[in-house]
Amino acid sequence: MTPKIERFLDDHKLPTPCIVVDLDKIEQNYLDMHAAFPAAKIFYALKANPGQPILQRLAQLGAGFDAASWEEIDMCLAAGAPPERISFGNTIKKATAIRRAHAAGIDLFVFDSPEELEKIAENAPGARVFCRLVVATDGAIFPLARKFGTGTDMALDLMHRCTDLGLVPYGLSFHPGSQQTGPEAHEAAIGQVAMLFDALEHDGIQLKMINLGGGFPSRYQDEVAHIEEFGRGIDRALAYHFGNDVPEVLLEPGRHLVGDAAALESEVVLVSHRSKTDPTRWVYLDIGVFGGLNETMDENTRYVITTPHDGGPTGPVVIAGPTCDSFDTLYEKTNNRMPLALKAGDRVRFHATGAYVTTYATNGFNGFKPLAEHYI
Amino acid sequence: MTPKIERFLDDHKLPTPCIVVDLDKIEQNYLDMHAAFPAAKIFYALKANPGQPILQRLAQLGAGFDAASWEEIDMCLAAGAPPERISFGNTIKKATAIRRAHAAGIDLFVFDSPEELEKIAENAPGARVFCRLVVATDGAIFPLARKFGTGTDMALDLMHRCTDLGLVPYGLSFHPGSQQTGPEAHEAAIGQVAMLFDALEHDGIQLKMINLGGGFPSRYQDEVAHIEEFGRGIDRALAYHFGNDVPEVLLEPGRHLVGDAAALESEVVLVSHRSKTDPTRWVYLDIGVFGGLNETMDENTRYVITTPHDGGPTGPVVIAGPTCDSFDTLYEKTNNRMPLALKAGDRVRFHATGAYVTTYATNGFNGFKPLAEHYI
Repeated sequence: MTPKIERFLDDHKLPTPCIVVDLDKIEQNYLDMHAAFPAAKIFYALKANPGQPILQRLAQLGAGFDAASWEEIDMCLAAGAPPERISFGNTIKKATAIRRAHAAGIDLFVFDSPEELEKIAENAPGARVFCRLVVATDGAIFPLARKFGTGTDMALDLMHRCTDLGLVPYGLSFHPGSQQTGPEAHEAAIGQVAMLFDALEHDGIQLKMINLGGGFPSRYQDEVAHIEEFGRGIDRALAYHFGNDVPEVLLEPGRHLVGDAAALESEVVLVSHRSKTDPTRWVYLDIGVFGGLNETMDENTRYVITTPHDGGPTGPVVIAGPTCDSFDTLYEKTNNRMPLALKAGDRVRFHATGAYVTTYATNGFNGFKPLAEHYI
Repeated sequence: MTPKIERFLDDHKLPTPCIVVDLDKIEQNYLDMHAAFPAAKIFYALKANPGQPILQRLAQLGAGFDAASWEEIDMCLAAGAPPERISFGNTIKKATAIRRAHAAGIDLFVFDSPEELEKIAENAPGARVFCRLVVATDGAIFPLARKFGTGTDMALDLMHRCTDLGLVPYGLSFHPGSQQTGPEAHEAAIGQVAMLFDALEHDGIQLKMINLGGGFPSRYQDEVAHIEEFGRGIDRALAYHFGNDVPEVLLEPGRHLVGDAAALESEVVLVSHRSKTDPTRWVYLDIGVFGGLNETMDENTRYVITTPHDGGPTGPVVIAGPTCDSFDTLYEKTNNRMPLALKAGDRVRFHATGAYVTTYATNGFNGFKPLAEHYI
């Protein structure tokens, strides 16, 4: 929670649920990452939070963008990003989306299958392409390896086919999984990519770029490595595997740039005991899984929650959302405690809710509108 | 899939993803349920699908409504439902929502805790209230017992407090869990409720209503009991436990009225192999978990899917959505097969998507807008 957000929430009694995003904090996160990776290009993965003020601020700072759809590309262009700083970073693209992107000047596309490569060749002739590899995602809270990436054999074959298809074989990418708490997974994957660079160079294909994906963490309840530590580890791995010939490096941070730059305020709707003997209280809030707090599923993301009664005596609680759906329970398994004084009408604050909240909100389930967004 | 929906989809090449809802089929489902339960009041649980044309059609037919929020009550009133046919059926209500409902003439509120009962007393003085009991949910695909309902002891206490609080102790309710495939759970719960009716009558409190909740199923891949079978089983249980003194019966069907009255059309974005040796193809569609097909989670709801190549040779597939999120995988564990001829650009149809789809769609995750809705 930044002091600016805290002041804003204290000064305005906003209708809840709402989220407040501190654009200066996002700028600071971007500059810190830039300092940790001075030679890299930083392409913001806007799926984490596509708020237009965020895109505008980052575009002004010179950031690039990793877009998941034509609609996201369109948002980046509207925010002032030049097409050469936008990558179409989804391995699953409609032909119409590729055509639109190509017509708008986008020249960098990812693929991980022969079918997608052919689709790009047909709809974005001449484009630069990079192949997403599947890598180990040990350590990630949200691994992504099941659905995306291909193996070394297939990647080699496909990079060989690029020129015949009229495409530029430009680079290789991987994604070590979201919310990596340290640089080890990135370091291991860099070795795997370097071997492929070598093999392709031997065949006369000189790749230009390595895309290290995202996965850089935000701080929730548990400590995570500082971005400088990622910078040092990754630099070391690049030097070790590529020597003096380090290619262009692309990073696709999403969560890391925006996660800790926002906080969410919610009203307590009900605090109740489910039976006369159970000491556990149920705390029902006006936001839950269907209002955007999706990452609490399986209790993966453990947000810091503050209340007006912090410091007083506490007791065990289950925390749940406001809908008529039992799946809409945020924290039940972990031993959460909240102040005994907590009551309906109190306001609680979820820290570090900048990533993967606003766009996870459903389209009005149970009649509850998506949370209000404030950019300051 | 009704013939009317099929014709509509065949005649219009609609932008995908989209859903088509057959209002006549919803009317038929309502009339069938009415025939199976001639003495019951049917209150549609609009959380399943709050499409305004659905609410209008049901209001014209004389249905009541089970609303989860003030916003849902407002939708029912706008559709022409009189306030006396609306129940505020969420055990978690903001004080402001209760006040608004009361001011609009809503006179039936549920509770399952002392705190909520007091909140209703303060904000809707004089209202009729009913207490939700926790019951066994064996057989339900989506049990709801963790979050809602209270035990027999607490329910007795709370019904005793109603008069002192200025409220009318009106009835008892339960919910046997969503997508019950047979009437057994309802039958068992009726016995439990009848014992409480007796105990309260002995203390001079004469309840008027038993609310059997919802849980009535829709047909997906597997056979479910016909609504007449639910009618017979529940009638038998009511007669057995209440004799000649059966109270007013309320039903809150959601899924059952709308589930099989809609179909969804989606475009295949990519069909690919993840490696050279794996025979399983990945079929990526332009809709997935974040576009509304949330109930595929844990592969609970197994939709029937038809393609233009049905009848031809098939092979194993994993079915996934279009987003850069590995969680967005619909069916991976079950042994799904689809035609070998399936390719990008083909349109596939998901049957029986009327319930819990449109409102589960996220607010534009990855830039993909919520699916278009057509009511015919």
